[in-house]
Amino acid sequence: MAKSWTEAHQDDLEERYRAVRALTEALTAPLSDADATVQSMPDASPAKWHLAHVTWFLETFVLRDHVAGYRPFDPRYAFLFNSYYEAEGARHARQMRGMLTRPSLTEIRAYRAHVDAALTGALGMLQQPARALVTLGLQHEQQHQELLLTDLLHLLSLNPLEPALFGAPSAAPVDLPGPLHWIEGREGLVEIGEDGRGSFAFDCEGPRHKAVLRPHALAHRPVTNGEWIAFIEDGGYRTAAHWLSDGWGWVQGEGIEAPLYWKQSEQGWTRFGLDGRQPVNPAAPVTHISLYEADAYASWAEARLPTEAEWESAAQNVAAVSGNQLDGPACPRPKPAEDGSALTQMFGDVWEWTGSAYRPHPGFRAAPGAVGEYNGKFMSGQFVLKGGSCATPRGHARGSYRNFFYPHQRWQFTGLRLAKDL
Amino acid sequence: MAKSWTEAHQDDLEERYRAVRALTEALTAPLSDADATVQSMPDASPAKWHLAHVTWFLETFVLRDHVAGYRPFDPRYAFLFNSYYEAEGARHARQMRGMLTRPSLTEIRAYRAHVDAALTGALGMLQQPARALVTLGLQHEQQHQELLLTDLLHLLSLNPLEPALFGAPSAAPVDLPGPLHWIEGREGLVEIGEDGRGSFAFDCEGPRHKAVLRPHALAHRPVTNGEWIAFIEDGGYRTAAHWLSDGWGWVQGEGIEAPLYWKQSEQGWTRFGLDGRQPVNPAAPVTHISLYEADAYASWAEARLPTEAEWESAAQNVAAVSGNQLDGPACPRPKPAEDGSALTQMFGDVWEWTGSAYRPHPGFRAAPGAVGEYNGKFMSGQFVLKGGSCATPRGHARGSYRNFFYPHQRWQFTGLRLAKDL
Amino acid sequence: MAKSWTEAHQDDLEERYRAVRALTEALTAPLSDADATVQSMPDASPAKWHLAHVTWFLETFVLRDHVAGYRPFDPRYAFLFNSYYEAEGARHARQMRGMLTRPSLTEIRAYRAHVDAALTGALGMLQQPARALVTLGLQHEQQHQELLLTDLLHLLSLNPLEPALFGAPSAAPVDLPGPLHWIEGREGLVEIGEDGRGSFAFDCEGPRHKAVLRPHALAHRPVTNGEWIAFIEDGGYRTAAHWLSDGWGWVQGEGIEAPLYWKQSEQGWTRFGLDGRQPVNPAAPVTHISLYEADAYASWAEARLPTEAEWESAAQNVAAVSGNQLDGPACPRPKPAEDGSALTQMFGDVWEWTGSAYRPHPGFRAAPGAVGEYNGKFMSGQFVLKGGSCATPRGHARGSYRNFFYPHQRWQFTGLRLAKDL
Amino acid sequence: MAKSWTEAHQDDLEERYRAVRALTEALTAPLSDADATVQSMPDASPAKWHLAHVTWFLETFVLRDHVAGYRPFDPRYAFLFNSYYEAEGARHARQMRGMLTRPSLTEIRAYRAHVDAALTGALGMLQQPARALVTLGLQHEQQHQELLLTDLLHLLSLNPLEPALFGAPSAAPVDLPGPLHWIEGREGLVEIGEDGRGSFAFDCEGPRHKAVLRPHALAHRPVTNGEWIAFIEDGGYRTAAHWLSDGWGWVQGEGIEAPLYWKQSEQGWTRFGLDGRQPVNPAAPVTHISLYEADAYASWAEARLPTEAEWESAAQNVAAVSGNQLDGPACPRPKPAEDGSALTQMFGDVWEWTGSAYRPHPGFRAAPGAVGEYNGKFMSGQFVLKGGSCATPRGHARGSYRNFFYPHQRWQFTGLRLAKDL
Repeated sequence: MAKSWTEAHQDDLEERYRAVRALTEALTAPLSDADATVQSMPDASPAKWHLAHVTWFLETFVLRDHVAGYRPFDPRYAFLFNSYYEAEGARHARQMRGMLTRPSLTEIRAYRAHVDAALTGALGMLQQPARALVTLGLQHEQQHQELLLTDLLHLLSLNPLEPALFGAPSAAPVDLPGPLHWIEGREGLVEIGEDGRGSFAFDCEGPRHKAVLRPHALAHRPVTNGEWIAFIEDGGYRTAAHWLSDGWGWVQGEGIEAPLYWKQSEQGWTRFGLDGRQPVNPAAPVTHISLYEADAYASWAEARLPTEAEWESAAQNVAAVSGNQLDGPACPRPKPAEDGSALTQMFGDVWEWTGSAYRPHPGFRAAPGAVGEYNGKFMSGQFVLKGGSCATPRGHARGSYRNFFYPHQRWQFTGLRLAKDL
Repeated sequence: MAKSWTEAHQDDLEERYRAVRALTEALTAPLSDADATVQSMPDASPAKWHLAHVTWFLETFVLRDHVAGYRPFDPRYAFLFNSYYEAEGARHARQMRGMLTRPSLTEIRAYRAHVDAALTGALGMLQQPARALVTLGLQHEQQHQELLLTDLLHLLSLNPLEPALFGAPSAAPVDLPGPLHWIEGREGLVEIGEDGRGSFAFDCEGPRHKAVLRPHALAHRPVTNGEWIAFIEDGGYRTAAHWLSDGWGWVQGEGIEAPLYWKQSEQGWTRFGLDGRQPVNPAAPVTHISLYEADAYASWAEARLPTEAEWESAAQNVAAVSGNQLDGPACPRPKPAEDGSALTQMFGDVWEWTGSAYRPHPGFRAAPGAVGEYNGKFMSGQFVLKGGSCATPRGHARGSYRNFFYPHQRWQFTGLRLAKDL
Repeated sequence: MAKSWTEAHQDDLEERYRAVRALTEALTAPLSDADATVQSMPDASPAKWHLAHVTWFLETFVLRDHVAGYRPFDPRYAFLFNSYYEAEGARHARQMRGMLTRPSLTEIRAYRAHVDAALTGALGMLQQPARALVTLGLQHEQQHQELLLTDLLHLLSLNPLEPALFGAPSAAPVDLPGPLHWIEGREGLVEIGEDGRGSFAFDCEGPRHKAVLRPHALAHRPVTNGEWIAFIEDGGYRTAAHWLSDGWGWVQGEGIEAPLYWKQSEQGWTRFGLDGRQPVNPAAPVTHISLYEADAYASWAEARLPTEAEWESAAQNVAAVSGNQLDGPACPRPKPAEDGSALTQMFGDVWEWTGSAYRPHPGFRAAPGAVGEYNGKFMSGQFVLKGGSCATPRGHARGSYRNFFYPHQRWQFTGLRLAKDL
Repeated sequence: MAKSWTEAHQDDLEERYRAVRALTEALTAPLSDADATVQSMPDASPAKWHLAHVTWFLETFVLRDHVAGYRPFDPRYAFLFNSYYEAEGARHARQMRGMLTRPSLTEIRAYRAHVDAALTGALGMLQQPARALVTLGLQHEQQHQELLLTDLLHLLSLNPLEPALFGAPSAAPVDLPGPLHWIEGREGLVEIGEDGRGSFAFDCEGPRHKAVLRPHALAHRPVTNGEWIAFIEDGGYRTAAHWLSDGWGWVQGEGIEAPLYWKQSEQGWTRFGLDGRQPVNPAAPVTHISLYEADAYASWAEARLPTEAEWESAAQNVAAVSGNQLDGPACPRPKPAEDGSALTQMFGDVWEWTGSAYRPHPGFRAAPGAVGEYNGKFMSGQFVLKGGSCATPRGHARGSYRNFFYPHQRWQFTGLRLAKDL
C-alpha cells in the first residue's frame, strides 16, 4: 500500500473513483450471468467474484473501518469475497469460487451500486489515511480489471465454440520488424525501487535502494511471434539443453509445444483471444508464455533474461511511462514491434519476465494489519515481471511496478525482452 | 432400449411427448443462466447440459435418422451434447461441461423449441422403429429429470448461502413409525426381468429369466433417519468390523461421518435439500447414503441387503407400481415411513440399494448401433438399485427397472431396505 | 475358513505343515536381502513381508491363542506383519511395507524357524479347532506362495536389466492348437458351492446352493497368445465398441496396448517372466490380462465370459482337479493348449476371469472374530476367477475356489475361456 | 565445475582420491543389501545408487573421455546410474531407483573397485583438464556422501522399529546458551562469489562480483531447539500471519507441527537421528526445518533471514572455514550453541537458509557439455543455503558454496541464523 503519498485535489480522487469503477462495469457489460459465474481453473476467478471482491475491499477497509454507521450490504459477503486476507477471518475456498451461482450478477451489480453510493457520499469527509485506502482500493481494482480479462480469456478458450467477446482486428498487411538492436545499460551503482515521491506505489515497490550492474545491454524490443515460430521450428520445445530442469519437467509433463492458446493448422499458427481465434501476427510480441519458455528461448538465442534492476534502471530513461495499454472495453492485443535505436514497448503490450525472483527489496517491511498481506506473503517461488501489458489499465504502469507469477503460469499477457552481458 | 413393445395410440405418444418435455421446462423454470451452467463435480452435469443433451438424443436418433430433410439446429451441438456414445464420434470431455457459458440458457431453450416443433410435426408420419426411439428418448429424458434435480441439489449444497429452489415443508408433528416387520419372500424358482409385454423397458431389464431364492424376508419399510441416527450414535462410522474393506477405506479417506448433506448442530441433525437446510425428519427414510454405508448399516443391524431377485420378486406382489414420486416442480422429499404388515414404500421415496452387482441378466445382448451403448457398457463396478425415488418422475418406475451407481456414490436419493435369511 | 472339516490323521497335518513351509523356503532361496525387501507397487508386497506375514498368522491364531506359555518371537512383529485384520489392532500401512529394510531376511528366517519349532512341537497336543486353524494357516500360506511369485515377477519387470530368477525354457517347435470347440454345459438347476464334505474350503466357497443355467457352451480351452495377437492386430485395443466403459477409460488413461509384460520388437512379441524376457508362445494361453481386456476380447470374438456357476458346474465333470500347477522352485509358465473334444486346462495354467462379481453365495455368513475378515469384507468391486494357475501350488485348486481381483488388475497369471449362449 | 584452478602436487590428488572414496565405503559399511537398495521418497536415492552414480560420474567423464582403451565395467550402468545429465542420453526414471534390487551391493562394490583401479592407475598420466574432472568428481562424491546420510536417515525414520545406524550420544548435562548477540555486518559495496584463486569451486559459486549491503546485523549463532520449542508453544505453526502464503498452504496441507523427525511425548520432544530416537537437545541448533519454517520463525522473532550476500560477506571474516563437520562413519549431530561476541558455528552444524533465491550470480555462464548441467539448470524455485552441516564432509565447506533446496524440503540438516536491518 501507499507509504508516502499526498493527494493534490479532493475532486481528483472522486473523479478517479468514478472512472475506475466505471471501467470495470464497462468491461463486464457484455457478460451473461453464466459468463460471470464460472471458474475455469483454480488460478482464475469468476468475473462476478472479481466484481464483488474489489467492492468488498473498499467496503471493508474504507467503509467499515472509517465511516461511522455504515451498514454492510450483506454480512455474508465477507465470507464469500475475501480473497486471502487471513486477518479478516475465514473465507470461501479459492477453488470453489465458481460454485456461487447465487448471488446473481444483477445482485452483485446492486452491491457495487450500494458501496459506490456510500463511498462517494463519504469521500469528502474522509481523512487522509482513509483516502489513501481508497486509492489503494482503486489500484487494487485496476489489478483485478486485468485479471478479469485474462480469466475470461482462459474461460472462453475452453469453450469448443471459441466465442469472441470483442470485435476482431481488421486484416492488414504485416510489416515484419527489422533486426533487433542492443541498447547498452548503466554500469555500476544504480538506484531502483519506489522513492516515495510518486503519486502511488504498492508497498513491495520500495524502498528505494542501490544495486550494482555489470556491463550489459537490453534488446530494443520484445521477442516477436515470428521469432518464436523460428524457435519452435528449430526444435526449441524438444531440446532439453535449453531448459531449466523444472521447465523441462513441465514441458514434458504437460505436453507443451507452443504458447498458450496457439494451434497449428494447415494455414499456419493461430491464437485464441478475446476477439476469437485469429492468425498469429508474426510482427507482434509473443505473449502467453511461461518463465520457463522465456528462459529457454533466451538460452536458445544465446542471451539471457534481464534482471529486475537492469530493466528498471533502463526504464528510468524512457520518456513516456505508457504504451499500448487498456483504455476501455475492447480486445487487448499486443501491437507489432517497432524499429528504432531506443528502447520501445517497455510499457504496455506484454509483461516482460525478468530473471529475478520476487523477493523483498532490501529494507522492505510489510504494512501492519490486513492490508499488509497485500504483497509480502507471496515472496517465494515467483518471478518478477515488469512494464505492463495491453490489458493493464492506462495509468497503472510505472517503472517500479513489480508484477509476479509462478514460472509455469502463462495465462497473463506475458512476453520477454532479451538481455546480454557485455 | 425397447425390445418388444407396441404403441396403442398415436395420440398417446404425442401427449406423452408434450408432457415429458413440459415437465423438464417446469423443473428448470426457476433457474438462472448461471444456475443452469455450473458443473459441481465430474459425476454431475449442468442443468443446461441436461436440457440440451436429451434434446440432442431426440434430434439425432429420431430427426436426423428418420425425418428426411431435417436440418440440425446447430451442427456443433453434436460435439457439445453427446454424452458417451462412442459410435456418434468425438465429444466434449465430461468434466468440462461446466465451461460452456455459451450457448446460453435462452439459446438452449430455443434449441428445445426447434426440435419440439420438428418432432411433433413429424410424429404422425413416423414408422414404428422411429416411434420406439421417441419413446426411448422420453424415458431417457425422464432419467435426466431426476439427475437434473440431484445435480442441482449437489451444486446448491456447495454454496455457503445454501439457497432453496423450492418452498420448505410445513412444520408438522412427527409420528415415529412402529417397529419394523419382516415380510417373507418367495422361495425356490422365480422369474424376474422384463417379459416384453410391458409398455416399455430398457434393454438391460431383460430378458425374463429364472432365479433361485433361498428362504428369506424383507423389511416392510426402508430404514429411517431415526434408525440411522442410532447407528451413528453407536459408533457405526468408526467401527471397521461393519464395513466392506473398500468402504472402510472410503470412510477414512473422505472423513465420512453421516449421510451426504447432513450437519450436526446443537439443535440436532439437519440436512440440506432443494428446500434449503431443514431438520432431519426421524420418521422419513434415510437417503443420500452410499452402498458402503447401506451395507455397513445392514451388518450393524445383523441383517443384509436384499438381492435384486429377492426385491424384484417381492415387488411383483405390490399392487401399485407407484408411490411418492415426482409430479411437478416441487421439492422431492421422502415421506415418513408407514406402519403395516405388507411391503410399503417399494416404489418412490428412495432408491433401494441391493447387494447385487450390476451385471447382465442371463441372455442379455446389447442392441446394435449407438443406442446399444445405453446400458451394457456400464456393467462393471456398479450395484443395482430398485424401486425409484421421490425425484423419479411418476410413470418411470417399474419392478424390472435397474438403476445402477458406484458403491461410493450418494448424491441420488438412495436408501435401503433390510433383508435376512430365514 | 473351514466350516465343517475333519482331520483324518494327525501325521498328515504335520507332514503337510512341513511340506508347505518348505516350499516357501525353496521359492525364496534364490532371493537376496534386497530382492526380498522392495515393494514394487501398493498392490504387491515384499517377499520378506510374505514370509513373515504367513508366519505371524500361524503365531497369532494358533500359538498365541491355543498354546499356553508361548512367547512371541518379537512383540513388535504384530504391528509390522498384520495385513488387514482390523480386529488385531493397528498395523503398518500397506503401501509402506517396502520401507522395512530391517528386520533382515536372515532375521525373518529365524522368525520362521522359531514358529516352526513351537508349532510342530505343539501340533500333537492341539485340539480340533486349533488344528483347523493350522490348516487354514497352511492354505493361507499357499495363497501367499502364489502372490510371492507374482509380486517378484512384477518387481523384476521394473528392473531395466530384466533379471531372470529361474532358467529359461528350452527352445522347442511350436504346435499351434487346432480350432476351438464348444462344450455344451448343463441347463436348468445346478448345485455349486462348497458342500462341507471336502478336505478344506475357505468360508466364501459356501454354502452349497442352487443356481439356474440357461443353454450355453464353454470353449474347450483358454484363449491363446496367438489368438490374442490377432485381436491386437485387428485394432482390439483401439476400438471403443468392444470395451466396458470403465475398461475403455482404463485403456486410454494407462495407454494399454497389450498384456502386461509384453513388448513388441522387430522379431515379434516378447513377454517378461521369472525366466527373463522370452518370445511369446502363440500356442500357450494368454495371461496377465485384466478383466477389462478379457471382456473386450470376448466381445470382439462375439462371445462372452462364463458365469461362475457355468464354470463351476462344468468343472464338476472334470476328472482331475489338477493340471499345470506349481510343484517347486521353478518358473511358472502356462503350457501350450491342447486339442480335444472335452474341457482342457480347467485347473492350472491360468486363472480364468468369469463375468461374475465377487459377492457372497446365498446364505453366506462370515466366521466370527479376526479370521472372519478373511474373505467377506472384500466383496465389492471385484470379479471371480476360477481354476488356478501355473503359480498355484499343487493341491490348492478346487472347483469351488473363488479367487478375486479388481477388473484392472493383471499381475496375476490371469487368462480367459470363452462362453456363449445357445 | 572448476573454472580456474591449479593442482599443486600430483600426489595430493591421488591421496585425496583415496581418502574421499574410502570415506564413502566407510559410511556404507554398516548397511545391508536391503538398506542400500530402498528408496524412501522421490527426493531421496538408495545408498547403492549413490555408490554407483558417483562412480559412473568418474568412469564417464574421466575414464571414458580421457583414458584410451578403458572398457566400461558394465555398459548398462550408464542407463541405470546417470542422474540427470540430458546430454548423456536416456536414463532410468528417478522415482524408480529403488526398484533396482540387482545389481547387488556386492556388485556395486566391485564396480567401485574396478573404476578405482583404472583411475588410480591412470592418474599419473592424466592431463590437467582430466585432473580437474577428477577433482570435480571427488567434490561431487562429497556432496553425495552428505545426501547418502540424509537419505538413509529418511529411510530409517519410516521404519516403525526406528533402528539406529550409529551409537547414541552419551547423556550429558545441557548448558543452555546465553542470549543471542547481534554482530554488525559490512555496509555498502562488498565483493562475494568465488574469485578463481581457491583450490576448487563449483561453477555456480562465481564469478566474483560486487553487491550492495544496507546496514544490518547477523545473530552470533543459529536458532536453537529450545528457542524453536518456544515458537511452537507460542502457536507458531497455527498463526497464519507469520507465514509466507505458500508456506501456510504447506503447513495446512501436510499437517506440519514441528521439525521433521520430531515427536512429542509426555517426557517432552524427541527427534529421530542416525543414532535412533533421542531427546531433543535444547542447546543445539534446530535442524530439519524448511525455508517456510525458517521464514515464519524469523517473522515471529521480528527479524528476517540473511541474504546470501550478507552471509557470505560476514563469513569472509571468519577465521576457520571449518566446524562441526563429517570426519568419518559416526552419527552427524549438531553441537550445542556457543556463547561469544563473534560469529560462531558459521561452518558445520546446520546449513543456514538464506532469504536469497538460487539464481545465477551476475555474469555466470554454465560450462559447455554434460558437466555444464551440474548447477545452472536448477536455478528456479530454490533458495540458497550457506555454511555446511554436521553431515558435510570436512574440507567441503567454503564461504562461496551455494547449496540449494526447494522451500518445503527439510530432510537435510537445515537450520537458520537470524538477521535484522539496522
